[in-house]
Amino acid sequence: MENSLIDRVVSQVFTEKALHDFYCKGNTCVGWERNVIDQPEAVQNIVNKGADRIAAGYGVGNSLPDSDIAGKIDHTFLKADATSEEITKLCAEAREFRFASVCVNPSFVSLCADKLRGSGVKVCTVIGFPLGANTTKVKRLEAEEALNNGATEIDMVLNIGRLKDKDHDYIFNDINQVALEAKKHNAILKVIIETSLLTDEEKIKACVIAKAAKADYVKTSTGFSTGGATAGDVALMKYVVGSTVGVKASGGIRSQEDAKAMIESGADRIGASASVKIVVGEKGGGDGY
Amino acid sequence: MENSLIDRVVSQVFTEKALHDFYCKGNTCVGWERNVIDQPEAVQNIVNKGADRIAAGYGVGNSLPDSDIAGKIDHTFLKADATSEEITKLCAEAREFRFASVCVNPSFVSLCADKLRGSGVKVCTVIGFPLGANTTKVKRLEAEEALNNGATEIDMVLNIGRLKDKDHDYIFNDINQVALEAKKHNAILKVIIETSLLTDEEKIKACVIAKAAKADYVKTSTGFSTGGATAGDVALMKYVVGSTVGVKASGGIRSQEDAKAMIESGADRIGASASVKIVVGEKGGGDGY
Repeated sequence: MENSLIDRVVSQVFTEKALHDFYCKGNTCVGWERNVIDQPEAVQNIVNKGADRIAAGYGVGNSLPDSDIAGKIDHTFLKADATSEEITKLCAEAREFRFASVCVNPSFVSLCADKLRGSGVKVCTVIGFPLGANTTKVKRLEAEEALNNGATEIDMVLNIGRLKDKDHDYIFNDINQVALEAKKHNAILKVIIETSLLTDEEKIKACVIAKAAKADYVKTSTGFSTGGATAGDVALMKYVVGSTVGVKASGGIRSQEDAKAMIESGADRIGASASVKIVVGEKGGGDGY
Repeated sequence: MENSLIDRVVSQVFTEKALHDFYCKGNTCVGWERNVIDQPEAVQNIVNKGADRIAAGYGVGNSLPDSDIAGKIDHTFLKADATSEEITKLCAEAREFRFASVCVNPSFVSLCADKLRGSGVKVCTVIGFPLGANTTKVKRLEAEEALNNGATEIDMVLNIGRLKDKDHDYIFNDINQVALEAKKHNAILKVIIETSLLTDEEKIKACVIAKAAKADYVKTSTGFSTGGATAGDVALMKYVVGSTVGVKASGGIRSQEDAKAMIESGADRIGASASVKIVVGEKGGGDGY
């Protein structure tokens, strides 16, 4: 991607944020995505200049029935010491509560594909996880292996150091190579940008590049770094990627309220290890993934 | 490997530990490896039953000159957001202080190989890091790529969940596949067992299997889990693997005293991000890797 294009989009989004902060007092705007409703003129101006790159979704309102939450959840267990027994239990819960997917480490993909056959629950796995710092070639090979083993959703971590290096071509190619592999298998690709390590400018750049490189979702966090999803980051990411790319909130989501706050801010998918507690409405629990 | 053999070795080591605890009061035994000196009869008995599998090294004594420490250090920077500039600085320090190697994430191997050409400082990288939960096939491919890019030392994480599953054949093959790749390139393989997540029994099994699978070193920690190296774990690991396999202490080593305590307990290599402070004798610093 051209750096000038990236810089232009970043500058446009920052301008929008300043407008938003100026216009929105208290709770008058729920998440940035509401700018489409609240500030049509400013948004139109940006759309005219940058087209769909910064198109915005409408958000999902305040009255989600709980049954809708389950279908947005990736039921997640990524601990290094997860056993086959624990992963088998994860799959049984995912069947029972009809979660969107289970999200597990690559060495458990075959087991989950076996346990979830015919259930409608997908198998999601993680690539270059959680540091994002292995090579592009290995990320693609890792994705290929996971897809061959039965995964249909891939959550990859982008190369955070190269983003800080401003090596945007590297980031684009790193994501695009995995996206090409995912498309070959009709699988979904989510790109984890690890918001807690990034500046707002880097978050915006990461979302713009992930969208251009054909990611289906951008995702906030690995759950293994210094922080998890915030409603503000979800709204910012949704605002940047628009309605054609999803946003997955993950990391530190432990209650139904946390999940609802994320969804109200624009999240299309929630990654949580406290998934059962979230759908039955209990508080606490989970490991912060 | 046969489970009966593994069980026999575990039981022998536990018997030895009980003997050690009985004989050694206060500081009379410095680390388990001193059993060779302090309890020759008990050790001979075990050697007769299990040969070199539990042979013990002699430790390195109490009077290490500081210049010797540098040559045992893997100068480490594994943060997800490490930049090219920071890695370049890491290499310059490694040249200056003559560390054994730099230890970096795979996407920086080429850069380090370039910066360290002709210096005698090796390039070490991490495989399946830090969760150890990707597939064996991917671990080997990742190692092959890193070795082709200029790494000559490989620190892989074993599959902790499969160890807890007691799937010893899986663990053996997982390590052995990477070992075969390393041998092909005349490279050194270290196996990270992540002591903080393991019981003593699991630590012993991990060391026995790693040695049988042709690892050159066993290593305590990734630095990304719930704890780092302890002198007790280093001594236990050295005791189990004996003199033909090295032990690398890593995680939480921030001062010269920490490093000396590890070396006195039998560590042959130290992984630290506070390496410069360790050799010049300052306290604190580093990120616990």
